[in-house]
Amino acid sequence: MANIKAYAATAPDSGMAPFAIDRRELRADDISIDIDYCGVCHSDLHTVENDWGGSKYPVVPGHEIVGRVTAVGPAATRYKEGDLVGVGCMVDSCRICQACESGLEQYCLGGATMTYGSLDRHDGTVTHGGYSERIVVSERFVVRIPEQLDPASAAPLLCAGITTYSPLRHFNVGKGHKVGVLGMGGLGHMGVKFAKALGAEVTIFTRSEAKVSEARKHGADHVIISTDKAQMKAASDSFDFLLDTIPVAHDLNPYLKCLRYDGTHILVGLLTPVEPALQAGLLVTRRRVVAGSLIGGMPETQEVLDFCAEHEIACDIEMLDIHNINEAYARMKKGDVKYRFVIDMKSLKNS
Amino acid sequence: MANIKAYAATAPDSGMAPFAIDRRELRADDISIDIDYCGVCHSDLHTVENDWGGSKYPVVPGHEIVGRVTAVGPAATRYKEGDLVGVGCMVDSCRICQACESGLEQYCLGGATMTYGSLDRHDGTVTHGGYSERIVVSERFVVRIPEQLDPASAAPLLCAGITTYSPLRHFNVGKGHKVGVLGMGGLGHMGVKFAKALGAEVTIFTRSEAKVSEARKHGADHVIISTDKAQMKAASDSFDFLLDTIPVAHDLNPYLKCLRYDGTHILVGLLTPVEPALQAGLLVTRRRVVAGSLIGGMPETQEVLDFCAEHEIACDIEMLDIHNINEAYARMKKGDVKYRFVIDMKSLKNS
Repeated sequence: MANIKAYAATAPDSGMAPFAIDRRELRADDISIDIDYCGVCHSDLHTVENDWGGSKYPVVPGHEIVGRVTAVGPAATRYKEGDLVGVGCMVDSCRICQACESGLEQYCLGGATMTYGSLDRHDGTVTHGGYSERIVVSERFVVRIPEQLDPASAAPLLCAGITTYSPLRHFNVGKGHKVGVLGMGGLGHMGVKFAKALGAEVTIFTRSEAKVSEARKHGADHVIISTDKAQMKAASDSFDFLLDTIPVAHDLNPYLKCLRYDGTHILVGLLTPVEPALQAGLLVTRRRVVAGSLIGGMPETQEVLDFCAEHEIACDIEMLDIHNINEAYARMKKGDVKYRFVIDMKSLKNS
Repeated sequence: MANIKAYAATAPDSGMAPFAIDRRELRADDISIDIDYCGVCHSDLHTVENDWGGSKYPVVPGHEIVGRVTAVGPAATRYKEGDLVGVGCMVDSCRICQACESGLEQYCLGGATMTYGSLDRHDGTVTHGGYSERIVVSERFVVRIPEQLDPASAAPLLCAGITTYSPLRHFNVGKGHKVGVLGMGGLGHMGVKFAKALGAEVTIFTRSEAKVSEARKHGADHVIISTDKAQMKAASDSFDFLLDTIPVAHDLNPYLKCLRYDGTHILVGLLTPVEPALQAGLLVTRRRVVAGSLIGGMPETQEVLDFCAEHEIACDIEMLDIHNINEAYARMKKGDVKYRFVIDMKSLKNS
């Protein structure tokens, strides 16, 4: 299965360009998927440009993959040819540790194998993501796309969706809760939709007046301008949860003050040091909590898709031809996307 | 009731000296308590020296108070003359907010009235603590000292005890959990005893080999030298809870790495900025939590006393004459106390 068409970065400053890759022959529990759509995540861009270090070139990004099953390994039983399926951020894990046995493969004690840029745990090759015609994945790491969902706008549910849905479920967010969402990008706008569907009263925190009407469109009950000290002060001690999707360093302390006692600040976007420094007193004096959360496990990834089908929730997307990927990255750097680019993979197949 | 003997600081550098105070006449739900013992908390020293700012001089510290009821207001029904009772860190709160109604007066939305250095919410006078012959307190903020407890060593349960007991209970620490305790002072040694009594497997983290045998005496199952990188690495991803009693800035990150996924790092001693910076990635990649906790509410303060009676738990104390308080403070600054000074208030009454 060599010479599959893909797009890759071959160096941190190479940009994305056409590239030929191999895909492995099917192992017993593998399925092969012809990719129809692939969402474009900020992680793709960070990995392409080696912002986090450790990128293994060539990088074929993409972990919001939707396509059709074209072949099934001899021991694979869950899917059949023609099924519409999805692959998210992980393609393997140890499968035997407590985390894996709990369906929390993202916290696998042996380290999950990520969809791109990881080493395959069987043959040691570097994994390649969804900016390609086809992918071969163990069926355990494949989810079913419900028929009611538009396949293209379902793609971002596999990262942006599950990343915001999982912590809301884990912390039992629901009716009677006041939830604030920080950041209104791909993750943030999904967080608002999920928190609303779960029954919470939802406030978007944004730095700019210009985003207020947009915030309302996503279903937010309230908007707080985070740069307005009077508005922030009026929000003191009032939130049960804050879902913080901001991916760059920011001051958590003004937000922590908005949490009531026993309130929880959930980080899903920040991977760097918390600067300026977190004020420990803000935690101690109200029994507040700062928590992190990483994507979600495989059962919960299926759950979020089914939840979206049931509640008619979709990601707001902009379709993209793969030969425009470099321009798309440039726009993402300026925050100019509402709210997720999704590559129409026909543009690769027909190229 | 004027001219009650007390010890006070009249300025940040005055040291402690004899001082005469007033106590109010009994309000309807008040009781008057003749103080037998008063524990000496690090907060006393910080307030005396105005380390946190805002100290109101004269400062009469002391919030680990044990004594006998000598008078009862007309509407007070819980206690009678002669009862052995205790007063902890709070003497009042709004009593009508959600926190107060939940028995979490320490998180009172109107702000709890602390035992010393607060403004009384009725007459605006500054509250004075337990380094005195007598105290007058609403019975809601008084607890009963079980007969089985030694009154002197029960005193520190009212701050050091409840501060460590409350979060262990709130986070449901129990059998099957691995708990680490950071810091081995007045709070830390109580944390070990409680975590053991609740059924957890307990490890003390200490910087010094010299403290290992001491740690074992408190009942710790294991000791980890936190300055030994190999020991810390071997502890990676293994703890369910860390109870962090360290009251000064310290690097949380090496400890966070010791938490398994879904593990919780509980701060009870730190009120200052978290420096060096918390690594958000350590939270996100394992769904770890950093939480704070402040003393405990009144129902739980009674509970910890009853728990200690049932499990024969006591604080390790060193008895002190009040005229030696300045030397005691000097020793506390050097960490030279095992593990809590308790003032024998006869030394004040007979002076």
